[in-house]
Amino acid sequence: MTPPVRAALAMAPGVAAKIFPASERARLAPEVELLVSPPLEAFDSAQARAVLADVEVLITSWGCAEIDEEVLDAAPALRAIVHAGGSVKQHLTDAVWRRGIVVSSATTANAVPVAEYTLAMILLANKRVLDSSRLLTRTHRFDLDADLEADTGNYGKRVGLVGASTIGRRVIELLRPFDLEIEVADPFLTAAEAVALGVKRSELDELIASSDVISLHAPALSQTHHLIDRRRIGLIKPGATLINTARGSLVDQRALTDRLATGDIYAILDVTDPWIPAPGDRLYDLPNVFLTPHIAGSLGTELQRLAATAIAEAKRIGACLPPRHPIVIDDLTRIA
Amino acid sequence: MTPPVRAALAMAPGVAAKIFPASERARLAPEVELLVSPPLEAFDSAQARAVLADVEVLITSWGCAEIDEEVLDAAPALRAIVHAGGSVKQHLTDAVWRRGIVVSSATTANAVPVAEYTLAMILLANKRVLDSSRLLTRTHRFDLDADLEADTGNYGKRVGLVGASTIGRRVIELLRPFDLEIEVADPFLTAAEAVALGVKRSELDELIASSDVISLHAPALSQTHHLIDRRRIGLIKPGATLINTARGSLVDQRALTDRLATGDIYAILDVTDPWIPAPGDRLYDLPNVFLTPHIAGSLGTELQRLAATAIAEAKRIGACLPPRHPIVIDDLTRIA
Repeated sequence: MTPPVRAALAMAPGVAAKIFPASERARLAPEVELLVSPPLEAFDSAQARAVLADVEVLITSWGCAEIDEEVLDAAPALRAIVHAGGSVKQHLTDAVWRRGIVVSSATTANAVPVAEYTLAMILLANKRVLDSSRLLTRTHRFDLDADLEADTGNYGKRVGLVGASTIGRRVIELLRPFDLEIEVADPFLTAAEAVALGVKRSELDELIASSDVISLHAPALSQTHHLIDRRRIGLIKPGATLINTARGSLVDQRALTDRLATGDIYAILDVTDPWIPAPGDRLYDLPNVFLTPHIAGSLGTELQRLAATAIAEAKRIGACLPPRHPIVIDDLTRIA
Repeated sequence: MTPPVRAALAMAPGVAAKIFPASERARLAPEVELLVSPPLEAFDSAQARAVLADVEVLITSWGCAEIDEEVLDAAPALRAIVHAGGSVKQHLTDAVWRRGIVVSSATTANAVPVAEYTLAMILLANKRVLDSSRLLTRTHRFDLDADLEADTGNYGKRVGLVGASTIGRRVIELLRPFDLEIEVADPFLTAAEAVALGVKRSELDELIASSDVISLHAPALSQTHHLIDRRRIGLIKPGATLINTARGSLVDQRALTDRLATGDIYAILDVTDPWIPAPGDRLYDLPNVFLTPHIAGSLGTELQRLAATAIAEAKRIGACLPPRHPIVIDDLTRIA
């Protein structure tokens, strides 16, 4: 039997307590040996240097310190960084790839809860569930014909997905059992991929103008800043719903709020700019806006899915197998 | 080519206008001939008698008058009743089956939106989405750790379905892509069926005591009146959510409200007793209760799914094929 691969956790202690409690750490054995019990918060202490001198796999997550040339120089045996989280951009530098270190991320596992939240919200939006609940009060006897548009319902509606990202693709899969048309706008999506996914490829403007629900799944890049700008917000069909579980910076929020204030469209926003709206924000007052505090991503029990993915990946590295969820440097220009 | 089968619509005019607008009626041709354009609201007018004398297929829906011996005597050529709706109990008498008339119902199509609503609510309940949105206000800065329980999330949670009805089975299908355990309590579900459905069969008490979300999909029968009684409501786990999209009569609502008032469980109620709570009802005030006005079933565009099912079925009858969605009299003791 090969000796266990030598690993260490590198993340904020609070994150480690949630993602890798003792029960999860125990699952690393016998193929993976944790060199140190408390997670490494920084790489410059004497203890961290001693761990780096030996470590083969770093298991990272939110709050991991930057892994730069200096850290890599101190870690001559490091051959893989397994990220139990979404984006690796906060803590990995180009040097990691230049040195041929394998990078793997739990992006796929992290996509699951966001796609689930999105699916639930698409179904509620077409059905006007949140609106109906709001209209049902002691003093208002709800009237199906007067209070709901005739075209309410999840049958034959069009869902427009902006971005065929990992999350966007998971949403596409989850939408298969429903009687909904799916269109996707993504400059990187090829015609062949769209066929394989079973979706129609659209230009962004056309998608925005024709969809009953628009859901954003694009990464926050300089090219996507205010991708949904004032002009495009003007294209949204009356009665349509915009769902944002991605990043607030994708949307010109002032323009969106202006349109929402007219009352003719709906929004379900798990992220805004800033991530939770400032106390003075008009969004809090609009009845056609459903706000949640950036909870669509992995939290609570869902963090165990990240741990499970990272543990499986660390074991593959230990067994000298390639990673199942590699991130290559070219991906970084178009992913979150 | 066989001549078109002779049919008539029998339902409330308002229902016909929604389910069978001109565009839907046109789809009946050329295999099905509508003998009369306005739907039959009652069967005792001279016009209705003339239609009954010739009709082979009655396409019924909500608001259809009772079809008893007298109506059947007036309809010697009638061989099938195709119901574009859910339950046939309101308008069909035993005489229909005694005479060997084929009965078909769009129960399967009608189950779809209820199952979709249920799926969305299960995902939101495990994730505390409605609660998180309520807690996010101008004056309360939401705190993930303080405001959400550590076991929030759609990973490894248990969903208990009460009733392997048509809707219950559709919910089971829709839940397949998720990391959730499914248990079902239904006295008619055999061990072999449970295996085929990929679910665990449980006793009702055990299911109620162990599920994170409990969803009711049992029919309203005398045996199911207050199936969820005060004792069983006492068994619900703290933090669990009860979803009712079935019938208010399944639940002892006073006992449920008493438990909800303690704040330690949640409820998502699309039906209550009466169907929309009376203005004085305590349910309106409870923050852990999400009320909707009996909208989970087919409405708006979803009615077209019922029309599509009924049209396909009428065409099968016209082509002397057996129905795809038959209702036999034995079913009536255990379905809605």
